[in-house]
This record gives sequence, C-alpha cells and structure tokens, in this order.
Amino acid sequence: MTRVYVAGVGMTKIGRHFDKGFLDLAAVSAFKAIDDAGGIEPEAIVVTNMMSSRLNEQDSLGAYIAAGLGLRHRPAFKVEAACGSGGAGVFNAYTMVRSGLFDAVLVVGVEKMTDYPTSTVTSALAQAADAEYELYYGASFTGLNALMMRYYMEKYNVSRDEMSEWPVMMHSNAVSNPYAQFHRKITKEDVAKSQVVADPIRLLDSSPIGDGSAAVLLVSEELAKKLPNKPEVYIAGAWMAVDTVELTNRDSLDRIPAARVAAEKAYKMAGLEPKDIDVVEIHDAFTINGVMLLEELGFAPYGQAAKLLNEGRFHPGDKPTANPSGGLKARGHPVGTTGVYQVAEVAMQLRGDFPGLRVDGAETGLTTNMGGDGSSLSVHILRHI
Amino acid sequence: MTRVYVAGVGMTKIGRHFDKGFLDLAAVSAFKAIDDAGGIEPEAIVVTNMMSSRLNEQDSLGAYIAAGLGLRHRPAFKVEAACGSGGAGVFNAYTMVRSGLFDAVLVVGVEKMTDYPTSTVTSALAQAADAEYELYYGASFTGLNALMMRYYMEKYNVSRDEMSEWPVMMHSNAVSNPYAQFHRKITKEDVAKSQVVADPIRLLDSSPIGDGSAAVLLVSEELAKKLPNKPEVYIAGAWMAVDTVELTNRDSLDRIPAARVAAEKAYKMAGLEPKDIDVVEIHDAFTINGVMLLEELGFAPYGQAAKLLNEGRFHPGDKPTANPSGGLKARGHPVGTTGVYQVAEVAMQLRGDFPGLRVDGAETGLTTNMGGDGSSLSVHILRHI
Repeated sequence: MTRVYVAGVGMTKIGRHFDKGFLDLAAVSAFKAIDDAGGIEPEAIVVTNMMSSRLNEQDSLGAYIAAGLGLRHRPAFKVEAACGSGGAGVFNAYTMVRSGLFDAVLVVGVEKMTDYPTSTVTSALAQAADAEYELYYGASFTGLNALMMRYYMEKYNVSRDEMSEWPVMMHSNAVSNPYAQFHRKITKEDVAKSQVVADPIRLLDSSPIGDGSAAVLLVSEELAKKLPNKPEVYIAGAWMAVDTVELTNRDSLDRIPAARVAAEKAYKMAGLEPKDIDVVEIHDAFTINGVMLLEELGFAPYGQAAKLLNEGRFHPGDKPTANPSGGLKARGHPVGTTGVYQVAEVAMQLRGDFPGLRVDGAETGLTTNMGGDGSSLSVHILRHI
Repeated sequence: MTRVYVAGVGMTKIGRHFDKGFLDLAAVSAFKAIDDAGGIEPEAIVVTNMMSSRLNEQDSLGAYIAAGLGLRHRPAFKVEAACGSGGAGVFNAYTMVRSGLFDAVLVVGVEKMTDYPTSTVTSALAQAADAEYELYYGASFTGLNALMMRYYMEKYNVSRDEMSEWPVMMHSNAVSNPYAQFHRKITKEDVAKSQVVADPIRLLDSSPIGDGSAAVLLVSEELAKKLPNKPEVYIAGAWMAVDTVELTNRDSLDRIPAARVAAEKAYKMAGLEPKDIDVVEIHDAFTINGVMLLEELGFAPYGQAAKLLNEGRFHPGDKPTANPSGGLKARGHPVGTTGVYQVAEVAMQLRGDFPGLRVDGAETGLTTNMGGDGSSLSVHILRHI
C-alpha cells in the first residue's frame, strides 16, 4: 500500500465576502495549497460544493474551477454529498492517488452562500433532507435535528445548560483562529437567552451561513519522496458511509450509525483506536451533531459526551481536543467545503503550524464531516510521519 | 496494473416516465446491472446526475440512491460534470477499483427531467454554460453550439444537407433499440423543414428531453476471476479532461481540445489507435458535437467528418460504426446519465447482446461523453477479453 500525503493546504477566512465570487475564493485557497506544497502542479482537481447549482446557477463546477485556476486539459469534476461534500471529495482524491493513476490531486471546496435572501439559502440547505418524505410535510432541516436533540436530552437526562457547553467551547476555541467566522466568546447564559430556531435548538446551537474555500493537495508517496520539503502528514485511514436521507427510516434518533461504520473502518486502516487520537475536527452543524459524533467515533459512551464535556473532557489540553478551530459553530460552515477545512486544519495541527489554538505535540488527528442529519459520513485519520 | 471489468449493465427506456421518480428509475437500472453481474453486492456507489439539485430539489443524491437501493453503510456520493456527469462517474468508479480499496463499484446515472415546464428545464440545462460570461449576456446553450456549427460549416464549406446526414443516421440506428426515446426514421428534408432553434441548429439537430437511468457495475480483476460468469469486457483505457466553460476563452470554435487530450491518453493506456476501434458511442447533444468529436477522436481529419459521413463512413457496417444506439439525438439524453448509457451500450456490443442495432464481431469500443459545449470530456475504451 502506497501512502497518500497531504503536501499542501490553503483556506480563506469564512464570512461575508461580498466582493468575491466562488472562483475568487477558490483561487485563494487553491494557490495557497499549491504554494504550500512547493509549487506542485495538480494532475487532477476534485471540486466540492453543495449549492452552486441551486444558488449560483452554475453547474460543471469541476471544469469551471479547474480552468479558472489555469489548470485545463486534465480530469476535474464536482463531488456532492450535501454538507458532507468536502469530506467526500477528500476521500475521492485519496482513492485517485491510491489508484496509481495520479501523483498529485487537488481538492478545492468552495461555497458562496451570502449573496441571497436567507429564505433562499435556508431552502437550498434543506435539500440535504428528503424532499418528498420530510420537507413536503413541513419538516425543516433544523426541526429534524431538533427531534434528535430533544430525544437525546430526554433519554439521557441531559440539561439545556449541559448541552450549551459545546457552543461555549466552540466560540472560545475560535477566538484565535484567523480563518474563523466568529471571534467572540459566549456564555451558557447567552445560549439560553438566544432565539429559539426549532425547540430545543437555539440560534447559538446553530452554525452560521458564510462564504469560504479550503483546499488540500494530496500526493503519492513516490512524489512525496522527491519533494524538497517532504510532506510531514499522511492519511492513515479514510472511509465513507451513507444512510437513509430520511430520519424516519433510521433505527434510532440518538444514533448516527454511518459515522460508526466509517470510523471503525478508518481506525482499522490506520491501526489506531480512539484513545490514540490527539485532535479531532467534528461536524457540529448543530450542538447535537457534535455531541452525538463524539460518541459514534468512540470518544465517549452513548449518552455521556455532553456530561463528559462539562467535566472538562475534549477541552484544550485534553486528549483528544475537539475542534480547536472552533468547529462549524464558530469557525463557520460554508457547507460543501467544511470537510476540506477540517482536513487542512488537522494537517496544520500535526505539522505544528495551525495559526489558531494549537494542540501541542499532536501526532494523530481525525476529521469527520456529515451530510444531512447523518446520511453521508466521511472519516479521515491523519498522522505525522 | 489490475484490470477493471464491466461485470453488469442495466438501463431503462428513455422517455417521459410520468409514473416514476428518480429513485424508481435508478432502481430499475441498478438492480438490472447487479443481476447481470450475477448478484454481486456493490461495495460503493457513484451516482451521476446533473439536475436534481435545481429541478428535483434534492441533494445528497449518493446517500439517497444508495440507501434507497438498500445499500447503506458504504461509500456513496454524487459526481457532477453537467451533461458529462455520467462519463465522469464511470471514470471515478474506475479509479476507485484501480485503487485496490474496492472490488465492486456500482455507477448509477439517473435524470428526471419531464415533470417541469420546458422553460425551467431549459434554464437548468443552460447551467452547463457560464452563468456570468455567457448566460447573463443572453447567450443560450443552443446558441453557443450554433456558433460552433456555423463556424464549422463556413470554414470547411459544409452544407446544411451534409450536416443533416448525422441526425438521419441517428434516427435510423435507434429504430431497433428498445431503450431509445425515438423509433422513427427521418429524412434530410425533415431536418431542413424542422423548426429553427438557434440558426443553423434546427429541432432535428437537437437531442430531446427525457427521463432515464443507466447503471454499470465495475469489478476488479481479482473479483472477476472468482465469478461464475467471468465478465467478458474490461476498461482498457479511461481519461478525462476539462476546458474553460466559457467558449470565448477557447482557442477555436471548431475544436474541442479536451476531447483530444482525453482520447490520446485513453488510446495510450489501451495500446490502441483510432483505426483499431470497432464501435463508438459519441456525445451528439447537437449535430455539430457528433461531427466535431469524430474528428477530435482521430476518426476523420479536421473538417472532413461530415463529408465522410455522406460518403457512407461511420454507418452500420463501417469501422468504426458510430452510435448504433441512436446517440443522444435518438436514443435520448437524460443529461447526467448519458455517459453511463454509452458505456453500458458499448459493453453489450462487445458481449454481442445489445438488443438494438448490433456491430457484429466488435472487439473494441470507445465512448465519449461531454459536459457543456466542450468543458468536461471523458473517454472510455472497452475491449473484449
């Protein structure tokens, strides 16, 4: 088996980039990643994005971004798995390098969400749920996640304030991340007082709308050996798993089985266990997602993650540290690109050059990116050489 | 290098399936392909589709289709490259099998286009062109192809009637194809009298709107050896290349350079030349695409394809025979799935069980699927064992 290395990473700050279209954003992260890798020209480009077809009225985004970057006449396409598109694209690029057909594949995630009325963006985001069996009957995407949160809190007797520890930690972690959308701390009281979106989900349980782009350049072991600056981080395990888009056909509201399937396979590939992981970047579009994923990934028993969080687990200094970036809640969530941000962030943590909250001495990291409320999960385990 | 085999294929008839949604269509082709392969369970699913995000208001199509087929808890995602999505998805699955991570990957192309007003479908199709640099200025997708057709006819002194030989042959080829949308022959006079869509493109130069689904199941050499019915067809060469979405930044209106790049690489991988190919399925969304692609693929000198066609080249009995299925023009063009139809059709030609016009004794075949008016090209070369 040939190793796949992360040779370069790049990101834009997440926020309202009124002066930039999605090609402008993609160019910033892509050229940063190429520069970071010492100028390697990608042989193929995987673009990850959820909403350009609906919001930006532009398809063929693989060709659009690749040619826009000056990288014509090579393979390029778009990979979509709703909010899990980024991770799916990285997994794709990983298999492409593993195939032996490519030595250098660039993944560019890009999402431009802020040029539209909120109602338009929200209805486009809802396409991550089932149009016929959920949305048609008036369920909103936040409402579906609220069902999961309420069920979890009732079943495991977890209080509102205990759940609030997650967004409080996220906002605290994000303060020093220059790429994060938010840089202000919040309190549990702020969460409790914030507007109800879909009870029990409040505004401060919810990830924001923002524009952004992240890129990672994956290279083969063969190419890595030839580079003047040998890449320090490789993908030791990577897998994806899907489940029904509609929540009603899952076995339980407090489980995300696809996360467990993807994680177990990725751990096995990497020869690691949850206790070996130093840093994780977890998909917390809503508070409940972050809490449940900690459990599915093996970092806490079922029903215990929120309680452990309130005892100080997963905070900076603990192993694993969860979402030093600030997570989707505070770093931001430009939906189709989030999974690429996570891989870029964890790669920088392991290299020791993440410009925000750093997990000192981290040798192993894990990312998990989710589509919908548990329909498309990808897990990547990264290691320092 | 491990070979990648086509172990199973499946298709639906293309047309107006008012009683079927896209999951119903996908189920028909997917289960046919699985049955055709002797019941192999796919380890991963690649869904190809262009329009569900815009027309069907459903994203996360990888999970949606995979779970809908009962194939949860494994990798699945959507690949999009506009009208070239199908070929891009097959290329993707090919790299996945080549990676050694998967022994059986199912590609399911599906497109549901007929539940909407024609103006909605046409504007969604136009997203294969550049939203900012073409559509905003009033160019239509057909209009852009009309520029190419007019330029080609003027430059090479090709008449309207000479161009019409293409759709006439396509409609003739489709008559016996049970999966084709149209089963009636047309004449050059019919073409000349048909409505102008964007001069010089007439209605009978244009592929129709239709629903459909096609699937192919790709397997590794290792798995192929273990199957009771050993697959007879393998992918000998496969590549993709992209170019600018906007026509204005290409070098010439009578060239599709990405097609040449993809074809040259695929020929090299297969160790074959154009003269070795027995049957081709070419992307003819409009007459001009079919004619120009014959040239870029090396089957005719530049400017000569239409003339050669009128001398009987590429007709049934010639080598290569072009589009025995009837092509996009008459077999139909459910956009994001067309590239999968092509691979399924050529695999059946080489196995000798295509249920329409058959190319007797065909040993080698080539497919080419295009996104936009030349922005995303994929080429697959198939061989009989």
